Amino acid sequence: MEHVEGRQSVLAALRAYQRRFQVLLVSHSTHTEKIQDVLDAAAERGVPVRFVDPRELDDMAHGASHGGVLAICSAKPRTTPRQLMDLLAALREPPLLLLLEGVDDARNLGFTLRSAEALGVHAVLIKKHLWDFDAVEVARPSSGAYERMPLVQIETIDPLRDLQKSGLQLLGCIAGAKRTMYDVDLRKPTILAIGGEKRGLSGAVRSICDTFITIPTAGDAASSLSLSHAGAIVLAEAMRQRRPSAPSPE
Amino acid sequence: MEHVEGRQSVLAALRAYQRRFQVLLVSHSTHTEKIQDVLDAAAERGVPVRFVDPRELDDMAHGASHGGVLAICSAKPRTTPRQLMDLLAALREPPLLLLLEGVDDARNLGFTLRSAEALGVHAVLIKKHLWDFDAVEVARPSSGAYERMPLVQIETIDPLRDLQKSGLQLLGCIAGAKRTMYDVDLRKPTILAIGGEKRGLSGAVRSICDTFITIPTAGDAASSLSLSHAGAIVLAEAMRQRRPSAPSPE
Repeated sequence: MEHVEGRQSVLAALRAYQRRFQVLLVSHSTHTEKIQDVLDAAAERGVPVRFVDPRELDDMAHGASHGGVLAICSAKPRTTPRQLMDLLAALREPPLLLLLEGVDDARNLGFTLRSAEALGVHAVLIKKHLWDFDAVEVARPSSGAYERMPLVQIETIDPLRDLQKSGLQLLGCIAGAKRTMYDVDLRKPTILAIGGEKRGLSGAVRSICDTFITIPTAGDAASSLSLSHAGAIVLAEAMRQRRPSAPSPE
Repeated sequence: MEHVEGRQSVLAALRAYQRRFQVLLVSHSTHTEKIQDVLDAAAERGVPVRFVDPRELDDMAHGASHGGVLAICSAKPRTTPRQLMDLLAALREPPLLLLLEGVDDARNLGFTLRSAEALGVHAVLIKKHLWDFDAVEVARPSSGAYERMPLVQIETIDPLRDLQKSGLQLLGCIAGAKRTMYDVDLRKPTILAIGGEKRGLSGAVRSICDTFITIPTAGDAASSLSLSHAGAIVLAEAMRQRRPSAPSPE
């Protein structure tokens, strides 16, 4: 069993229909009119609601921002590589996937999922052995995207090769690459691979990338972009190229 | 007196020549070869170094990530509106300024400064009464950008009007605006105004914006972009338009 905490996350989880819910706990001190949408969604799914002492909720919660709402439920199921293939086959637009390596922080991962959803990503891929996060800490900054975004945990690079065989290009985002993100056609079916700040992309992933691209930055900037900000910028460029009104890439 | 904590922040602060340093404290447990660059920079600026007990450093530090290095120094000086005008007059390229309103979190502000520096921003403007952050918490995620980036604290919108009179366009980034960031010429001297997630831009700033622009997002995204990610995306678009090879905006 896992928890989901906070109005926004619980509501997103109830509406995403991915978890099995045991019970919704609501603090006696919570104004029910402020969480009416959560109570309605729980009623619609037949999830029992229990009103509890605020201290009981505090004791159970992982964080301090639950706002008096906590659900006990199964973990969010992962999307298998086979399910991903089915999902991609059903799309009416070219797939846009995000592969993350070396995310060092649950909060950064949550923000990345949020940006990925807002920028049209269809699924996020993460290596299984790199998943070492508290789901509550990921969910909070994701604004519900953690509940809705298909998450694929891969154990080897084989699923990436399969995606390449099915027509997706695998683009590795790397500082200092010769090509910029403006030089590639991101309207094609695409996997964008982004590595963590410390070690970047793994050798295994690099070895199968079709092309490497970089985000142009200010010439003399001693600073650089964080993983989640680099991800948002590359995904926004994909959205720009994919606009109906967009001219062909330069 | 303020603190600067951690190798990267202390090194950036020493090299930025903006603060007056009283002393550099280094934990006995720190391997000096790992912070040789900091020690060299301190020597160059004539800052005394004192080796102290690790617990003494822990007691003084605001966070746990000081890594055995802490400097006691004056606060980072703010850039006045008049100094900003001088700074802009000396630029060889069209100014790109970032105005932030309603930043709710020191960490998000730090990341925003980091992205701003990497994406060519010349100065960041923040309303004075909204500055309520622990400088150490801002500096850490900024990767040194906090030390290097000119920060202008404005008390009214008058300095914005002055900048407009001197030829800068003030663009308000707002969800749902009719124009997208692709529809405006960001090569011109520009102030990009970005508001917090809760209330957006203030009425006072909105009332003087020359144009409002939005970042296109996925049609059905229930999620949205955080302030720091929205900022990074708009600034990257400005960099794209300002590339020497870029064609005219569409």
